[in-house]
Amino acid sequence: MNITIRKIAKDLNIAVSTVSKALRDSYEISEETKQKVLDYVREHDYIPNPYAGSLKNRSTKNIAVVLPEVADSFFSNAINGIDSVAQQKGYHVMVYLTHENMEREEAILLELRSGRVDGVLISVSVGEKKNDDVYKQLATELPLIFFDRVSDDIDTAKVVTDDFESSYNATRHLISRGCKELVFLSTSGNISIINRRRDGFIKALTETDIHIEDHNVVVCSENEAEALATIREILKRKKRVDGVLGSVEKLAIHVYTVCRELDLKIPKDVKVIGFSNLQIASLLDPPLTTIVQPAFEMGKAAATLLFQSLSRKTDITKERIVLPSVLSERDSTSAN
Amino acid sequence: MNITIRKIAKDLNIAVSTVSKALRDSYEISEETKQKVLDYVREHDYIPNPYAGSLKNRSTKNIAVVLPEVADSFFSNAINGIDSVAQQKGYHVMVYLTHENMEREEAILLELRSGRVDGVLISVSVGEKKNDDVYKQLATELPLIFFDRVSDDIDTAKVVTDDFESSYNATRHLISRGCKELVFLSTSGNISIINRRRDGFIKALTETDIHIEDHNVVVCSENEAEALATIREILKRKKRVDGVLGSVEKLAIHVYTVCRELDLKIPKDVKVIGFSNLQIASLLDPPLTTIVQPAFEMGKAAATLLFQSLSRKTDITKERIVLPSVLSERDSTSAN
Repeated sequence: MNITIRKIAKDLNIAVSTVSKALRDSYEISEETKQKVLDYVREHDYIPNPYAGSLKNRSTKNIAVVLPEVADSFFSNAINGIDSVAQQKGYHVMVYLTHENMEREEAILLELRSGRVDGVLISVSVGEKKNDDVYKQLATELPLIFFDRVSDDIDTAKVVTDDFESSYNATRHLISRGCKELVFLSTSGNISIINRRRDGFIKALTETDIHIEDHNVVVCSENEAEALATIREILKRKKRVDGVLGSVEKLAIHVYTVCRELDLKIPKDVKVIGFSNLQIASLLDPPLTTIVQPAFEMGKAAATLLFQSLSRKTDITKERIVLPSVLSERDSTSAN
Repeated sequence: MNITIRKIAKDLNIAVSTVSKALRDSYEISEETKQKVLDYVREHDYIPNPYAGSLKNRSTKNIAVVLPEVADSFFSNAINGIDSVAQQKGYHVMVYLTHENMEREEAILLELRSGRVDGVLISVSVGEKKNDDVYKQLATELPLIFFDRVSDDIDTAKVVTDDFESSYNATRHLISRGCKELVFLSTSGNISIINRRRDGFIKALTETDIHIEDHNVVVCSENEAEALATIREILKRKKRVDGVLGSVEKLAIHVYTVCRELDLKIPKDVKVIGFSNLQIASLLDPPLTTIVQPAFEMGKAAATLLFQSLSRKTDITKERIVLPSVLSERDSTSAN
């Protein structure tokens, strides 16, 4: 919707000149009225126009980090990387959690257009519906940088890891340890890094004589109980699954939980690898083989790009940074 | 230092009236000049006075969360709790990481006085020097709420857990499982919750005929390598240590790491308990007995208090909320 000053004035029952002055933050207008206008503007996704210049052009010294959760070792490390750069630059980090909810992500991004931050770093949520239009709109207004979970269709800076290759190598590792019936545990929704991890898995299998079918790639719900139920079904299949690749940390952890329940032994009955930055992977029973993403460095690289864009006003939309992940082999994939 | 408008004008080489108007955000002043004045004010810890009213009285719809780190399960869960309330209220969460550095914490708190946020939630850093004066000053300007790691000497709202009791109970649990030579691993610095946990430990020991001496309470450095070295020394003592209580998550994890190194068996050789909210404590080898703090609920309670203060302008300085922790017994403390 295209909100005009006239519409704001009408809805708030004040004069057009009052709205205009409030947006220019004039001393003639009371704080109360200014707040009313600001609240309205934020609520109604007002597209800034020349009148709103004084609100829009001031440097806020804030950057926004929009990401699904903090209780995942990748994201907590990435925040540390972002923070290390922001602190140096005297900037403040605003963390927005989407909890994998696309509507919430969209609401956050709309809100960020109100001039609260100088730039946005985002790792997108999973979800069927994509927010591409929202990303595109935001990218025209502010420096927008994707890290880890990117949207392929948007032409802006991206910092990722080599998801296809690292997943391919992890799958080859499982095969080399004797796995014949492998499953890739995918998150729900259509996010590019998970698709690439899946494609790396499929590629490795098609290079062998192992037959790959639909049931070798399984989508798990974001809901914990549902994900556990799905993994239970997989591990109870008649044709015994003997190798699992978890596309995100919590799915690999769920496999451990279900194996305990079903009294399946890792790695004897089933071998497990997870994408994870858990420092204590080596203290699990058994130690978990992980694909370790360069989380801190990715956060740092993304923040560095943002500040390049802010200070030099250079065009960063073509920037693509790919940092390698590392396979850390542990007992969960030992040969029998 | 008491910065005046005159001093700002002199230092920036502009007229006093220009500074005054810039602080009132007058349309007569260019954005460039306003930015210059704002930057100066932020840098020099300008104490707001009536002239700065227009900057100060506007609701920012931001709250600050100041805490040591996000890569600790307590803090990541607490952030989720805070965020759950803030989202509902339409507020934005700014996360500031101190990395256990008191100077950095002080710099952050001074910065927060510039009118960037409506209130502050803080879990203080460890460190010899206390920032009490900074807390006190901030508390006169904004609602300030301590959660988990509080400063006892400040008269403002606090949300904590029953550190003394839960530590006392955990120690009794170790004694009941046969431990005779116990060690409490403390963080460095003087923070009240760690002191309470230590006192609970000492109380439990003094109720038995176990002799308690200085070497039963050991301070570990914030530096990982140093902390590991200290724990190595402890576990190599002639008088074999058979029970360890880690006052924070990472210290209990370090004990696991060192036991692997020294080929000590948990729980046979040494029994371990840690304060921790790690969801995967049960998947460690062996599963770790934890004192589980109500992290999410503490975050939620702290944020709720803050919004009460903001909306009703009620005095929350006398509020004390104590939420109970729970001992979760696992194999790391099994009887031999």
